[in-house]
Amino acid sequence: MIHPIPSGTRDVLPDELRELRAIEERIRAAFDDAGYGEIATPALEFETVLARGNVAATHPSHRFLDEHGTVLVLRSDMTLPIARVVATRYATTEPPLRFCYVAPVYRTVRPARGQARELRQAGVELIGSGAPDGTAEALSLLCATLDAVGLGRYRIGLGDASLYPSLLDGLGVPDDARDELLTHLVARDFVALERAVARLGIGGSDAALLATLPQLRGGVEVLERAAAGTGTSAVETAVGGIRRVLERVDDAVAARVILDLGLSAGLDYYTGAVFEVYDPALGSPLGAGGRYDELLGRFGRPLPAVGFALDLEFLHQALMREEQLRDSGEGAGAMEVEMPAARAPRTRRSGR
Amino acid sequence: MIHPIPSGTRDVLPDELRELRAIEERIRAAFDDAGYGEIATPALEFETVLARGNVAATHPSHRFLDEHGTVLVLRSDMTLPIARVVATRYATTEPPLRFCYVAPVYRTVRPARGQARELRQAGVELIGSGAPDGTAEALSLLCATLDAVGLGRYRIGLGDASLYPSLLDGLGVPDDARDELLTHLVARDFVALERAVARLGIGGSDAALLATLPQLRGGVEVLERAAAGTGTSAVETAVGGIRRVLERVDDAVAARVILDLGLSAGLDYYTGAVFEVYDPALGSPLGAGGRYDELLGRFGRPLPAVGFALDLEFLHQALMREEQLRDSGEGAGAMEVEMPAARAPRTRRSGR
Repeated sequence: MIHPIPSGTRDVLPDELRELRAIEERIRAAFDDAGYGEIATPALEFETVLARGNVAATHPSHRFLDEHGTVLVLRSDMTLPIARVVATRYATTEPPLRFCYVAPVYRTVRPARGQARELRQAGVELIGSGAPDGTAEALSLLCATLDAVGLGRYRIGLGDASLYPSLLDGLGVPDDARDELLTHLVARDFVALERAVARLGIGGSDAALLATLPQLRGGVEVLERAAAGTGTSAVETAVGGIRRVLERVDDAVAARVILDLGLSAGLDYYTGAVFEVYDPALGSPLGAGGRYDELLGRFGRPLPAVGFALDLEFLHQALMREEQLRDSGEGAGAMEVEMPAARAPRTRRSGR
Repeated sequence: MIHPIPSGTRDVLPDELRELRAIEERIRAAFDDAGYGEIATPALEFETVLARGNVAATHPSHRFLDEHGTVLVLRSDMTLPIARVVATRYATTEPPLRFCYVAPVYRTVRPARGQARELRQAGVELIGSGAPDGTAEALSLLCATLDAVGLGRYRIGLGDASLYPSLLDGLGVPDDARDELLTHLVARDFVALERAVARLGIGGSDAALLATLPQLRGGVEVLERAAAGTGTSAVETAVGGIRRVLERVDDAVAARVILDLGLSAGLDYYTGAVFEVYDPALGSPLGAGGRYDELLGRFGRPLPAVGFALDLEFLHQALMREEQLRDSGEGAGAMEVEMPAARAPRTRRSGR
């Protein structure tokens, strides 16, 4: 007898859950080794509190009324609840503060898109450590965590969420056109982006910059190409910021990074460096993060911050795929597998 | 800056969460040792599916509409979701089935009662093993689990949820009076219960039985006293059932048990043995369980079943209290601490 469950949710049976729990434990140990203390917050929050993060538009949450008629929502990420905790419970604690979590979050889903309504996430928030040092610490911990769970083929896309908005500001692009451009950018629809740029009626070199800059992906040569020939301060700021982060991470971390000047943030609270985790086994990122230097201020404790979240089920799928490849003897060759097309990096990592 | 969170919820900060996670791990290991496989289910379920358990009246859940206008609720326990999983995903698997969980559940709260809206539970469901063997296995695992986490002073109240309803059936008590009596019984309001019994206008010995039987608590002598002088089959069935369970558990488990013929079920799906876990540090039970032999049938896979759930935060509080007592040198004497009044057993456990 079949009893349905809501779309975007699933039952996890013992064999799979045992593996997920083992991954959780390794992640927790990696976070703990780095000095990040785990926090748990309620799945339910007051909508008015979470609205400080202004993400309602991006991830409209499950809403209902409590006994007093106040609107409660299921949290759609852990960054906003932890910002709330920092402002409320650590209002006078000397930064930096290092917190982590392993917890489900909830998103509303569109029919037939295969989206998850309930996601198991593990992540960290580093609060009170600005760019570039905080960013470098977060990226290094991200790699240490993925190494600890044994993922072999991952890459980190690294960009700057402020780059494109700053470019648009510098060129005086009006608000409605700006929204359209950013929508295409988030969707990575570069064809639509180019068309929208053409309609702006701005000068040739500026139009070319807006159309091509976000398509720059690859190694450090991307930074040279971006900086060459433009005296644009938005580009110089972003390129300089990325350079300073790369100077502060180990070679092993830098070797994982794919620079991506088109990387932008789905969540409006990201302000600087943004990153995504890719694995050739998956068609979408298994993790993401970035700087959110303005968010804590909205909760009354202005501090720069950076964090990331990993999707535990995607991570598990990627690990299983690697295990299958090892078992089937595809071995080192498997490391050459192409990245998923939508997010494909321009460079490949060499096998090891 | 203070940002409120919904009543009945809380933030758990690193020092406390580290201890809670350690307790969870010990519990998971104890469940795993006994052959119980952990399952995770969505926090959100269709109301129509959970309504098969008929517990909506007891624990009205947080309700909201999904994208199609269907009512979703936050689960208020894990027993119903696991019954759903068994009927759906294990429809033809040979019983018994042994499942466990470590998961939050959600209840609506009444203002200013200090009730938890979000509870962290760990528990098991043993499906396809009837009384008395299944009950004895569940009780034994309950004690093994509490022993594994290091709780020293706990006691298990053991009764039979069918006893009082069967007595009322046997005496032909009309429905409205029956509901009133059961309400007083669940509230353990024996004064109101006696008054309501007096108003029934039934014979002296029957009235005495209804008024006094649920007040019988203690060791095996309770069974002698209950059986003595009544030829009532409901009493004989319940007493015989409890005896058979006690015969099947180790002495160490039996030594933890306080028989309680007034123990009844807050959840309507309990059908036979019911139990509660007490600790002198707490004013309310830190766990509960029982047989629910009819529930799986409502989901289309009729199998007897028994399970229990522990409240992880209560368990943590009890453990901390014991640690404080040990640290303060109160030692063995502390083992003599009185049980909480509302649930006080008639007998005390001797210190060890």
